[in-house]
Amino acid sequence: MSNKKIEIFDSTLRDGAQGEDISFSLEDKIKLALALDKIGVTYIEAGNPGSNPKDMEFFKRIKEIKLSNSKLVAFGSTRKANIKAEEDKNLKSLIGADTETVAIFGKAWDFQVEEILKTSLEENINMIFDTIKFAKEKNKEVVFDAEHFFDGYKANKEYAIKAIKTAKKAGADVIVLCDTNGGTLPKEIKEISKKVVEELGGRIGIHCHNDIGLAVANSLAAVEEGVIHIQGTFIGFGERCGNANLSSIIPTLQLKMGYRVIEEEKLSRLTKTARFISEISNLKLTDNMPYVGESAFAHKGGMHIDAVTKSTKSYEHINPELIGNDRRFLISEVSGRSTILKEIQKIFPNIERDSEEVTKVTNRLKELEYEGYKFEGAEGTVELLIRKTIGKYKPFFQLNHFKTIVEQPFSNKDFTSTAIVNITVDNENKIAASQGDGPVNALDKALREALESFYPKLKEVRLVDYKVRVLDSKSATGSKVRVLIESTDGRENWTTVGVSKDVIEASWTALVDSLEYKLIKDMEKNLKAYF
Amino acid sequence: MSNKKIEIFDSTLRDGAQGEDISFSLEDKIKLALALDKIGVTYIEAGNPGSNPKDMEFFKRIKEIKLSNSKLVAFGSTRKANIKAEEDKNLKSLIGADTETVAIFGKAWDFQVEEILKTSLEENINMIFDTIKFAKEKNKEVVFDAEHFFDGYKANKEYAIKAIKTAKKAGADVIVLCDTNGGTLPKEIKEISKKVVEELGGRIGIHCHNDIGLAVANSLAAVEEGVIHIQGTFIGFGERCGNANLSSIIPTLQLKMGYRVIEEEKLSRLTKTARFISEISNLKLTDNMPYVGESAFAHKGGMHIDAVTKSTKSYEHINPELIGNDRRFLISEVSGRSTILKEIQKIFPNIERDSEEVTKVTNRLKELEYEGYKFEGAEGTVELLIRKTIGKYKPFFQLNHFKTIVEQPFSNKDFTSTAIVNITVDNENKIAASQGDGPVNALDKALREALESFYPKLKEVRLVDYKVRVLDSKSATGSKVRVLIESTDGRENWTTVGVSKDVIEASWTALVDSLEYKLIKDMEKNLKAYF
Repeated sequence: MSNKKIEIFDSTLRDGAQGEDISFSLEDKIKLALALDKIGVTYIEAGNPGSNPKDMEFFKRIKEIKLSNSKLVAFGSTRKANIKAEEDKNLKSLIGADTETVAIFGKAWDFQVEEILKTSLEENINMIFDTIKFAKEKNKEVVFDAEHFFDGYKANKEYAIKAIKTAKKAGADVIVLCDTNGGTLPKEIKEISKKVVEELGGRIGIHCHNDIGLAVANSLAAVEEGVIHIQGTFIGFGERCGNANLSSIIPTLQLKMGYRVIEEEKLSRLTKTARFISEISNLKLTDNMPYVGESAFAHKGGMHIDAVTKSTKSYEHINPELIGNDRRFLISEVSGRSTILKEIQKIFPNIERDSEEVTKVTNRLKELEYEGYKFEGAEGTVELLIRKTIGKYKPFFQLNHFKTIVEQPFSNKDFTSTAIVNITVDNENKIAASQGDGPVNALDKALREALESFYPKLKEVRLVDYKVRVLDSKSATGSKVRVLIESTDGRENWTTVGVSKDVIEASWTALVDSLEYKLIKDMEKNLKAYF
Repeated sequence: MSNKKIEIFDSTLRDGAQGEDISFSLEDKIKLALALDKIGVTYIEAGNPGSNPKDMEFFKRIKEIKLSNSKLVAFGSTRKANIKAEEDKNLKSLIGADTETVAIFGKAWDFQVEEILKTSLEENINMIFDTIKFAKEKNKEVVFDAEHFFDGYKANKEYAIKAIKTAKKAGADVIVLCDTNGGTLPKEIKEISKKVVEELGGRIGIHCHNDIGLAVANSLAAVEEGVIHIQGTFIGFGERCGNANLSSIIPTLQLKMGYRVIEEEKLSRLTKTARFISEISNLKLTDNMPYVGESAFAHKGGMHIDAVTKSTKSYEHINPELIGNDRRFLISEVSGRSTILKEIQKIFPNIERDSEEVTKVTNRLKELEYEGYKFEGAEGTVELLIRKTIGKYKPFFQLNHFKTIVEQPFSNKDFTSTAIVNITVDNENKIAASQGDGPVNALDKALREALESFYPKLKEVRLVDYKVRVLDSKSATGSKVRVLIESTDGRENWTTVGVSKDVIEASWTALVDSLEYKLIKDMEKNLKAYF
């Protein structure tokens, strides 16, 4: 077990912003920088002040905020060909960002210099030298990103090595080997990193892209050869297939390879940080993302659930608590009585495995599954169903009638649909009507309006996700559909499900469950506070 | 460059089905098996006939269809403890599935045997031996999956080796080393695989899970040590963080490591196959998935686009055409022009690449893509759009008004919805009304009824598939939805697409396109017959 420290260089705000569908506002960038600082990555590369005036604005704003753990980095390129470093406008902006550390990228592949940059091999070497020297004279810590280093090394080894030796001679503090196109194999990464570590010494870094699905493996392979600085993005997004995923690399280094990466007590923030970044980036975190995904510790097969109940190590490589994730047992056709019992005991702890109640709930779940329900991830509906089947459940309202109308052409240009809802609560009748984007949206609005006059706390509930899946799509427009709705009250998220041949009825079922779930939870809290 | 053949063992239909949110119908499974056969994976593991009656039904159905390239595999476990193999019900079902090959999993980790299976180490060895021997006596090719092999090897090397040696002695044709919990590092995979290859010889396989993001790397690492059989799922889904992603492994082995994996001309089906599987599984393919994702060859930064225009190898590790994917420039309008030209020339063969018509169609497609349309697979809509943009297109009918009403409770118990459609054809007005399962079904029926009096040939059209996908589901019930409708007239199938915030409007668009497509095709045929 080594106890060597590895530097984590997060480029979510810079290289990550090159990802498709990613576009950060200034406020987003501030929030993200604070989250990264809180978990304590070594460096936060936050933007390219030369190429982007919004990034310059960020560096001004962030100075008013004090980061506690991480060093902020501004990113820029070597000077333009055939001018002096001090005359290069982008370079001036880079220095002007006023960060302790700058990252400077330069070409290490002869083909790129001659064919893309259209300058001479010699001038490129001068550009590297002058730029780094200039930054060092301004007292910056300099991270040199040798772009396309591995492709360059394979094409012209001498030139690639000359580029990084020049950077080192000019005073660069870290030399980073970049697999810019993301197509290099771990074996090649190992061989080449090893040679560079031997030949240059000092702090060597790695920057991998995921074009063949090996960015994480390649980063770890380089560490095994003495590299001590890893660049990536926190949840892996970036241009094309993205950058090395730091939320996978950090726990593997720390928990499985014995390196020191971030402070131990901060590791439990890993999942929370990843989900926060995905939320701010408006990019759904893939459920099966290693360590931090919703499904990363979700067990489905009945046999697996049974085994994990006996001993978690039977189907878990680590304890999910270490990185702040949760174990989940998915209720599915293949899952058995013990999974259902666990769900029941969350609400009614005294119910036993062989009791009649467990049979009743199991049968009800199976009936609904047969109709097309699926309870995986729909914990909200499962909880309500258990309460309705076992407990003394009293409905919060009674539906008398609803009606939705969709018309084309429609009188109101902004909307296409109208809904009317008629309900009774404690013998009091209430009718509400609303227009919306489509019938489900109109119905959602009308139902809330009707209910909020009785239950004002429902104003806190916001739907965060809405999914429709057509079952047996061969029956075409007469097919059954399953609707999943995820809701939040700002503190907790819950998911409910509805199935019907009518998308509106299925949505209605899931919607009603979602609101009832909230009402039950609040009622319980009040009872607890009272006694 | 080696020229060794690697066997690909696809478990999308079996281990993939353990993934959260995955639930295949029988029809889905048949379609997926055919797609996997078409690209030519070596094995298709299609289900567990012992544990799941639906899977048994699949094996019956698939026998009526002949696969051209792949071998079908049924999956099951070693016999239960303390009974004879021939008495084991699950094992009988496994043999009863009547496949040429069976995969049998058994325990290779002492802890799992004693703590989870609750039997003796010796009995487990007997279970492995008896089960494989029994299957061999039934003339099956046997793939033995040594579950938790790597964890087992690390805990009790002798026992793990004994388990696989027993399998070999009993006649297993392939011995597969499983990293069931997905937490093993490439270095360990290499060391252990190497020892097994040396000690056992013969066909050794690898089965990796992606819990630390290394399933692809681990599979490749094993191949470097002499493993010749790789198990995974085509787009990587499966329990928890999923299985090794075969759509990453296949091209890397074939294009970068010099192995023979699938036939060369089939490699260009890779992207299409991955997207088809994601579509059938109703699981969005992550945009940044290596090789096959939408963004895998998408260039965003201006500098990068400029460089790729000069030479594609500047930011692409391979030519995307090799695997059937496309290069995309995210801010440019020149992308896809040649693809679009190809579609146009199918209808108007004389239109040239640089003509104004191509620009007009390209712009229109881009506008619609921006609104959320996706034309992959929606060739019906693309053809109509080309005709409407370029040709002298005359609509077949004019919509005056439609209205759908959904009510609960509803007077007719069989249906929930009513629709009224008012159209004009050649100055003649027609109103039709219908009830249906949900508003879309009612609208579908009413529109057909109105149109059929003018165009009786529409009676031939039947919808065979109806799909709804919520775009940007964060906007919840106000989200845009994309509706895909597949239709047939018994001779030809075509797919049309509609997008709107209103599921009914989106369905209407796709429905109208579907019927217009049929009318145009018939008109063309009549013209040809006439001249």
